[in-house]
Amino acid sequence: MSRKGAAAVIIGNEVLSAKVQDLNGTLLIKRLRECGIPLRSLTLVPDDVDAIVDAVDRARRQAKHVFTSGGIGPTHDDVTVRAVALAMGRQVVRLPEMVKLIETHYGERITPEALRLADAPAGAELWKQESVWMPVLTCDGVYMLPGVPQLFRIQLETVLSRLERAPVHLKCLYLSAGEAQIAQVLDRVALSMPQVAIGSYPNFDRSMDYLVKLTVEAEEAAPVDAAIAWLERELPEGSILRRE
Amino acid sequence: MSRKGAAAVIIGNEVLSAKVQDLNGTLLIKRLRECGIPLRSLTLVPDDVDAIVDAVDRARRQAKHVFTSGGIGPTHDDVTVRAVALAMGRQVVRLPEMVKLIETHYGERITPEALRLADAPAGAELWKQESVWMPVLTCDGVYMLPGVPQLFRIQLETVLSRLERAPVHLKCLYLSAGEAQIAQVLDRVALSMPQVAIGSYPNFDRSMDYLVKLTVEAEEAAPVDAAIAWLERELPEGSILRRE
Repeated sequence: MSRKGAAAVIIGNEVLSAKVQDLNGTLLIKRLRECGIPLRSLTLVPDDVDAIVDAVDRARRQAKHVFTSGGIGPTHDDVTVRAVALAMGRQVVRLPEMVKLIETHYGERITPEALRLADAPAGAELWKQESVWMPVLTCDGVYMLPGVPQLFRIQLETVLSRLERAPVHLKCLYLSAGEAQIAQVLDRVALSMPQVAIGSYPNFDRSMDYLVKLTVEAEEAAPVDAAIAWLERELPEGSILRRE
Repeated sequence: MSRKGAAAVIIGNEVLSAKVQDLNGTLLIKRLRECGIPLRSLTLVPDDVDAIVDAVDRARRQAKHVFTSGGIGPTHDDVTVRAVALAMGRQVVRLPEMVKLIETHYGERITPEALRLADAPAGAELWKQESVWMPVLTCDGVYMLPGVPQLFRIQLETVLSRLERAPVHLKCLYLSAGEAQIAQVLDRVALSMPQVAIGSYPNFDRSMDYLVKLTVEAEEAAPVDAAIAWLERELPEGSILRRE
């Protein structure tokens, strides 16, 4: 697999144990889509160094951009920095620039544990933001975002504003035929046009009129139009209810 | 890592590209929690054989029970059965029992593609259900559930009703102190009591009164009570707003 697009690692026992619903993954999926950055995988893992190292390592092999969420505070369960450093084969170092920001932020209330927020994989960069004192911690394509949804949202926008974007072209067909009736045609088009992604989604909600929704998408508009035209020719007569 | 608990692989380009919100993962997390079955990881992957093989292989090494969602229909993008078989080192075979069910269900509308629903990893079992014609497809601890949320929900309950359950004991403390102020105490308790999972969740919503929510949980009640008592002794005086 070539290293394109993004991959995500959502860290936290609280998410896997249903104490907190994962809002960050949902937001990330939506915003990457809007920015035209394909997401290759998203993994939820516990606050466990080995599990995070494994997930980050796989994410880095799949994708150019790796987003992590959670595990970067000052407490015992915040092990993301150490795990990312291990996955990248780097030391953990304390960033003097971040130490200064923490000292300013905490003032007299500072503790030795607060300074753990300044630890980062060697070679990490801090991306400053307008509205928040805490900068984005990044290291060679890995963006270590906080798990708190309000902060995650702000830092995500800071990262996205720096990444290259590519639009996605998408068209849909709503069909009155079932999947078994159309599978042969889909096979032919999908096999012949690997540059186009064709999705087939059966609908079991009787309040809606269609049996299958087909999605056709690609980076360019022309192959999408060609695939739609081919499908319109070969799908069972009268089976297309509408286009979108 | 010992093979305990569950792991999940949610399959589908539609979820990763934000065309559909993943309801199945959210439901699975909630229901496993309610049944006391710990979830070790949850991964969203595209309709891609290699990606699914990799994710299922990792899930099987982590957990005793592996739930997959999606990719088991009759169309070109339904590759879950093939991928699960590859991950398990098994052949794909056609199940005669399932062929009969499909013939009965489709009647005259049957197509060669509909029969693909009868393909399964060698050694697979079908678990019949009261309300749906389609049984649950299982193979040695892997449960291949459909991606359509209405069907996923029904099949999930069929699987859960057959699994052993263990209750989880959980207590919470809401604190007026910040994470940096309590990190040292948490470190000590967490290190000394590995049988207890301690979570620390900062709150940035000013409409709520607390700065940090601590969760303490374990399979037994006694260690949870012991950890709570220890925390109550050592946390900064007056910092506990309430218990839950």
